Amino acid sequence: MTAPQVEIYGPGYHPSQTKHHEWRTAENSAAHLLPHLERLGRANPRLRVLDVGAGSGTITASLARYLPSEGTILATDISDDILDRARTHAEAQGPDVSRRISFQRASAYELPFPDGAFDVVHAHQVLCHLASPADAVREMLRVCAPGGGVVSLRETDMGMWCFWPAREELEQFRQLATDVMVANGGQAEGGRRLLSWVLQAGAERADVEAGFGTWCYSAPQDRRAWGGSMIDRLRTGQMRDKGFDLGLVTERGIEEMIRAWEDWMAADDATLGIMNGEVIVKKK
Amino acid sequence: MTAPQVEIYGPGYHPSQTKHHEWRTAENSAAHLLPHLERLGRANPRLRVLDVGAGSGTITASLARYLPSEGTILATDISDDILDRARTHAEAQGPDVSRRISFQRASAYELPFPDGAFDVVHAHQVLCHLASPADAVREMLRVCAPGGGVVSLRETDMGMWCFWPAREELEQFRQLATDVMVANGGQAEGGRRLLSWVLQAGAERADVEAGFGTWCYSAPQDRRAWGGSMIDRLRTGQMRDKGFDLGLVTERGIEEMIRAWEDWMAADDATLGIMNGEVIVKKK
Repeated sequence: MTAPQVEIYGPGYHPSQTKHHEWRTAENSAAHLLPHLERLGRANPRLRVLDVGAGSGTITASLARYLPSEGTILATDISDDILDRARTHAEAQGPDVSRRISFQRASAYELPFPDGAFDVVHAHQVLCHLASPADAVREMLRVCAPGGGVVSLRETDMGMWCFWPAREELEQFRQLATDVMVANGGQAEGGRRLLSWVLQAGAERADVEAGFGTWCYSAPQDRRAWGGSMIDRLRTGQMRDKGFDLGLVTERGIEEMIRAWEDWMAADDATLGIMNGEVIVKKK
Repeated sequence: MTAPQVEIYGPGYHPSQTKHHEWRTAENSAAHLLPHLERLGRANPRLRVLDVGAGSGTITASLARYLPSEGTILATDISDDILDRARTHAEAQGPDVSRRISFQRASAYELPFPDGAFDVVHAHQVLCHLASPADAVREMLRVCAPGGGVVSLRETDMGMWCFWPAREELEQFRQLATDVMVANGGQAEGGRRLLSWVLQAGAERADVEAGFGTWCYSAPQDRRAWGGSMIDRLRTGQMRDKGFDLGLVTERGIEEMIRAWEDWMAADDATLGIMNGEVIVKKK
């Protein structure tokens, strides 16, 4: 086994970071997996799902609702603190959800499970935080069951955000977020590169379905959730600190970005579209 | 009535332009409409659909498969030639499809139909070719039936293309396509602006669902269809001629773009993602 990769979640776990993650559900962030989950669940009532890098676990909990009668999800992350938060969220969904989910600290680079241990291996916005994404995909393929198991991945692309109304400060925000992500050792172009990582990890092209999915923040409640979270990041988040440390932004620049987000949140015709790469690998 | 807008389809109807349009189906290009079409069709077996700017009509024909028993689609365009092509395509799909579709020459700015004449009004990649998109949306809202009729729109965004493997020449192609579109009087940022056009046309925000959808060209057959069509455009299309006329590109630049598309078509890990704005307006 090669030396373990450095295990740090670059953005950290400040509420400014985790809050908008909790907007995420299976429906808005793992829709490409759902037909496969339902198909496999019809054939196997004891479906075993691994959710790698589950974070605060809102997608995990909503995936649980798509499982067959005896299906289970094991959620991993590298932080015990965030797994505690995920556990609390799962319990709040009631026993039908929480009884299906267990939690275990694990690195995506060295999953402590035997080959083929899971029917479905899912990871959402995990590879973009890793220095060696293909190594993590190789591990996910290893623990996925041969003969039809599925690895499901989704990664954002920091180059694929569009805002309306157009504001230079929002574009500066996107650039700052990108630069901080890269400075943290992450991958800014995961959406477009996801397929290449999967092939580097040993999958064959014919076994991979590649596509793109989106997030749209435009309805008033979605604008408030997203814009409020971005303003929190600018006021108190790791992005602010790192931006100052790296000389990427000034106090005045931060204030202008905050005002631009406030204006965007207030505009009835506002949209933010973000594109994410999505792949399904069917393991032979 | 205000003076009619100039009615020209900027890109023209050369095969280099129309060929890749014929890859489009209801499933890959109007998925946001399908649940509404099925919902409305269950309540009304005589559902009346208007497809504005139907072009070569492949989406029209595949929408016909989602209609209730006595449902019909009227397809309009400003070109009789392209409507002939659409009619031929519809006839090739067999009588179950062709009996439902009729064709009529019409401008999106002045739809020759009474108020509320259609239960569903659909337009795909039409507004991006117009100088006054909101005026066309106002017409579509006018001919849509009040009390629950639906206007369904989808518009691309030329700023939201991502390529892998990264190649400067593909980015130059995207920029050339954008510049030619704008020189033809079109709108390059329709994806992000679609909601704003709909509100300018008089819709209320609470009656609009806004989102984004994507095209992905990555599977071998999709790479061949898209790449081949882009190379045709560079070799013989209106984009080439206009690019030369406007001094946007050189012969050598064109050749380099063609080679870049050929390499992209041959790469197993190649992806092209394109994001489109999508809205559904429910007419009160």
